[in-house]
Amino acid sequence: MEPILRQSRSVCPFLKKTSPSTLRALSTSSSPSASGGGTMSNLQVVARRCPIMSKALAVQSGRASSVGSVFANPSVSLAIPRQKRHYVAPTNKKGFESSNSRNAETLDVEEVHRRAGIIDTSKGICPHGSAAKHAAQIADSLKPSKGAKTILKSASPVKATSDCTAKFDYEGFYNYQLEQKHKDRSYRYFNNINRLAGKFPQAHLEDPNDLVTSWCSNDYLGMGRNPQVLKVMHETLDMYGAGAGGTRNISGHNKHAIEIEASLAKLHAKPAALVFSSCFVANDATLATLGSKLPNCVILSDSLNHASMIQGIRHSGAKKMVFKHNDLEDLEAKLASLPLHIPKIIAFESVYSMCGSIGPIAEIQDLADKYGAITFLDEVHAVGMYGPHGAGVAEHLDWEAHAAGRPKGTIMDRIDIITGTLGKAYGCVGGYIAGSAKFVDAIRSLAPGFIFTTSLPPATMAGARAAIEYQYDYSGDRHLQQHHVRTVKKELEARDFPVIPNPSHIVPVLVGDAELARTASDMLLNKHDIYVQAINYPTVPVGQERLRITPTPGHTEQFQNQLYEALEDVWQTLNLKRTSDWALEGGLCGVGMNAKVDPIWTNEQLGLIKPAPKVATSANITIKTGHAVDEVFETVIDTPRGITA
Amino acid sequence: MEPILRQSRSVCPFLKKTSPSTLRALSTSSSPSASGGGTMSNLQVVARRCPIMSKALAVQSGRASSVGSVFANPSVSLAIPRQKRHYVAPTNKKGFESSNSRNAETLDVEEVHRRAGIIDTSKGICPHGSAAKHAAQIADSLKPSKGAKTILKSASPVKATSDCTAKFDYEGFYNYQLEQKHKDRSYRYFNNINRLAGKFPQAHLEDPNDLVTSWCSNDYLGMGRNPQVLKVMHETLDMYGAGAGGTRNISGHNKHAIEIEASLAKLHAKPAALVFSSCFVANDATLATLGSKLPNCVILSDSLNHASMIQGIRHSGAKKMVFKHNDLEDLEAKLASLPLHIPKIIAFESVYSMCGSIGPIAEIQDLADKYGAITFLDEVHAVGMYGPHGAGVAEHLDWEAHAAGRPKGTIMDRIDIITGTLGKAYGCVGGYIAGSAKFVDAIRSLAPGFIFTTSLPPATMAGARAAIEYQYDYSGDRHLQQHHVRTVKKELEARDFPVIPNPSHIVPVLVGDAELARTASDMLLNKHDIYVQAINYPTVPVGQERLRITPTPGHTEQFQNQLYEALEDVWQTLNLKRTSDWALEGGLCGVGMNAKVDPIWTNEQLGLIKPAPKVATSANITIKTGHAVDEVFETVIDTPRGITA
Repeated sequence: MEPILRQSRSVCPFLKKTSPSTLRALSTSSSPSASGGGTMSNLQVVARRCPIMSKALAVQSGRASSVGSVFANPSVSLAIPRQKRHYVAPTNKKGFESSNSRNAETLDVEEVHRRAGIIDTSKGICPHGSAAKHAAQIADSLKPSKGAKTILKSASPVKATSDCTAKFDYEGFYNYQLEQKHKDRSYRYFNNINRLAGKFPQAHLEDPNDLVTSWCSNDYLGMGRNPQVLKVMHETLDMYGAGAGGTRNISGHNKHAIEIEASLAKLHAKPAALVFSSCFVANDATLATLGSKLPNCVILSDSLNHASMIQGIRHSGAKKMVFKHNDLEDLEAKLASLPLHIPKIIAFESVYSMCGSIGPIAEIQDLADKYGAITFLDEVHAVGMYGPHGAGVAEHLDWEAHAAGRPKGTIMDRIDIITGTLGKAYGCVGGYIAGSAKFVDAIRSLAPGFIFTTSLPPATMAGARAAIEYQYDYSGDRHLQQHHVRTVKKELEARDFPVIPNPSHIVPVLVGDAELARTASDMLLNKHDIYVQAINYPTVPVGQERLRITPTPGHTEQFQNQLYEALEDVWQTLNLKRTSDWALEGGLCGVGMNAKVDPIWTNEQLGLIKPAPKVATSANITIKTGHAVDEVFETVIDTPRGITA
Repeated sequence: MEPILRQSRSVCPFLKKTSPSTLRALSTSSSPSASGGGTMSNLQVVARRCPIMSKALAVQSGRASSVGSVFANPSVSLAIPRQKRHYVAPTNKKGFESSNSRNAETLDVEEVHRRAGIIDTSKGICPHGSAAKHAAQIADSLKPSKGAKTILKSASPVKATSDCTAKFDYEGFYNYQLEQKHKDRSYRYFNNINRLAGKFPQAHLEDPNDLVTSWCSNDYLGMGRNPQVLKVMHETLDMYGAGAGGTRNISGHNKHAIEIEASLAKLHAKPAALVFSSCFVANDATLATLGSKLPNCVILSDSLNHASMIQGIRHSGAKKMVFKHNDLEDLEAKLASLPLHIPKIIAFESVYSMCGSIGPIAEIQDLADKYGAITFLDEVHAVGMYGPHGAGVAEHLDWEAHAAGRPKGTIMDRIDIITGTLGKAYGCVGGYIAGSAKFVDAIRSLAPGFIFTTSLPPATMAGARAAIEYQYDYSGDRHLQQHHVRTVKKELEARDFPVIPNPSHIVPVLVGDAELARTASDMLLNKHDIYVQAINYPTVPVGQERLRITPTPGHTEQFQNQLYEALEDVWQTLNLKRTSDWALEGGLCGVGMNAKVDPIWTNEQLGLIKPAPKVATSANITIKTGHAVDEVFETVIDTPRGITA
């Protein structure tokens, strides 16, 4: 045994208990690095769980990001070197404060341990006692370089008071987590927004007389105040009460569940559907169940997928491959790298809610067919709003076939699993999956998140079903929504506002700074009575902060004009960048890059011009340069039922 | 390289790609066995993911359960033996069918591989082609011994058609999973139960005229039809619409959320509370977040904990220690084995829903204090029903202090985290956590299951809040519930029905067989118009199947008498065991074991006798032998508001 290992063993309980062969195995086997690319030895993984060594590794990582050598080499085992190695660690008058290589000195492991407090012979038995105190002091004084940020963020606070005779400081831990959120500006302040059914899209703040116009709700079609939906809910409340009273298995299965699942199956032209508490739960439970049960399953996930899918994939324990957003080449390369016979799930969305982009559904389905994968399509931000029956983008792509009631062989028919929500365009709450009868029955039978939870209330299921059936038969609301979206996008673009180009109903306006986005949102609310939530990290990447505007059928001309004037004032006051400013910098997120995107709702589908012989295909939903095709839409007069009710 | 390894490499893509040192590391490192006790080498873990080797391992496991040797030794590497080893594998006329050691023959690895189809030189390139076909045939003909069951259940179906040029058979996989559920009798058939607000506790089946009495709903107090709750919901629906329209961060935060969280914080005398889509989500998200963020966290979990907690703990990735149900000695031993300074969470319930037992809350809190742990108490089956304000069992234990509005220093005050539901005694849907302000803010800020999901509808939050406030001020419903529970338990016991003794409102009646429990449930429904769902594996262990009866304030004498007569008929017709029968066999689950349990609601608390000087403490909620103390309750006349409304 090398002297350094022997010495380390005398102070570290883990090393003391672990056999040399296990240590060797740990130091030669490797895992993917949690902080991104590359791998680290399993010993490093273990070491990162140690409050002492995680500090040392963070220091090392910070150092490596400057000099880019030691930590980048996964074969270098920091904790248990087979032979004495020299570490390059930063120091200055505060010890470890600077990661500047000019201040670097060369330390061996013993010195790193001593500085981190691991070796503290004066204390004898427990190295983590005063060691932790020391490490905490060092940690407190650390100003990590950019490269070390990820690791330091996930590291825990080691309070100065903690030693082997002191209990863990839970409140200190919560406080530390909150401080981190404040520091990286991701701490969320909720606005008290009470959306008024009788004054849609208006809401009141804390004071019922303080009215604002909400421009960022996901009640995309105003179905939350639809009279037919509310009527059904009132009746169901009176007849069947407030709650379901049990899980689906124990007293919570009823005609409302049966009927809405039949409506959802019909909507997506699938044999079966299953309702969950939310689509977060539906995505999480379904992916976690499939990924953990399918042998050797690999899940291919779009890089912009929603948190619910990311969580479901993580919980499944299946192998995950992230492909670049909407990048068919990258997806195909990853699919081709896998054996044909192993199960694969391609998880992606139709409308991506924060940028409004739309997935190339048909092409992804083609790849799935070619490589033996199944498709898992999240239509959460599309159901109710696309297609002749509101079934989503997959239905939209074969408009004529679905309008004629011939789903067989269409893209939607070929998609294996569709998930959607009852809480956005359908105005209620809840989520669902739709697919083959055996698939749905398997999830019904296996997913704890479905089995062991109280059913949605009868009135919620009845109301949501009324919304689905209403939108199935009537397309006026989504027509008017699309008209308003086109108008708002066109006007904002004409005024040089940096709208992120996309083919959907989402109108993201780029700000590019967390503090400014929040200030802009506050100013809109406080000065202009307009509510648009700022979208900051981690929902969007740092530097791509935005205001996300969602016009509905209720956002008529008067509201639109208020919005333009308010944005003009905010942009001027805060000196925010316009599209032309972004263009000077080379553009960002498509803004200032001359990217023109055709809306997925064509003029023909909106009844603006005579139908062309060819219907929409997924080919026209990817970003293209070209010209907008909406020259004539202003002339249309359209008064659908939805808005006059 | 040994000849067997060289040969295996020529046919197995995994072996071909993996370096000898990695293989060595994998075969010498070990993991806990998924199927229970012991460890297996990491190579075995990998091998179990292989459709070919998993079969071989299952065969081996089946064999080992009979002869108990080869597989039990984790140092025996099945897939990559360093030297040629001999395997003992079962065979008979159908190949591998019997696991009887009398039919055993000795095979070497090559022969096992050949029989399983791994070595198939005739096919050349792809061993998994015809190999898979063969393995599937073998698997189909296998009747695994008991010991092999777990592994075979988790193994995937290898369809006869699958080879390296064939895609995975997803429908076959779903079908296989469903077949397994049918085989182990855990497949669930849902009953269509439409609970009628105007006729509580009655419901209609598919035909609206086909009325039954529901005796198993978790709408424990009938709040789902409470006029005050329904009134508030109607008003909120009209004023604020059907849905919240967004996540809490984006347009879904409103006065209803603020108000219900204030009510919940007041209810539990905690600084803060947070509402989730369900308590399944609340438990899952909170434990997963805490367990993954707290450094080196260990979660100590009661063995009967609900699926939502089990899932949260698994998703956290934290170390889990399961302690025996309500066993303070076992819990303390486990706590004492951990260093004081590392964070620990004790996760447990107040009322365990399937057996009605109650956790020793005060004693667990004492242990938590002693060993530096925090307590995570699930009061899902207790809120609304225990304590002077309906805050649950923790409140119940310090009745006088809470009744006097002095929560400081009480057990409930000392509990760190309380979780509860809005979907059972409060009659609506949703779940929540309550605790310190920083804890709640941390979960609010970190848990994806809270952040990225649509808020509960305003009417749901308003209705649930009305229910909380109603039960906060009025105890008549829970008094009457307890009276009905006592009457039903007493009468069933007098009639020799095998009621599992417990101190709560749950009345579990032991059947002890899955098929009989289901038949009894069907017979009650079809012949007697009484709905009591059978509770089978995996919700309860095999052999402990039961009918779970939940009397409510609405289950008056007339309904009770119908129940007794129906149960008499069913027990007689199906020849089900009575308490005296169980006693002859030594008893099960407390049935036939002369175990008398005092109800947690004392006579004093129910107003049946004058208050004794001492209030209830957690000491009298654990199972004791003794006599029931409810001799006088029949004389009480109690007509609370709830039942006449």
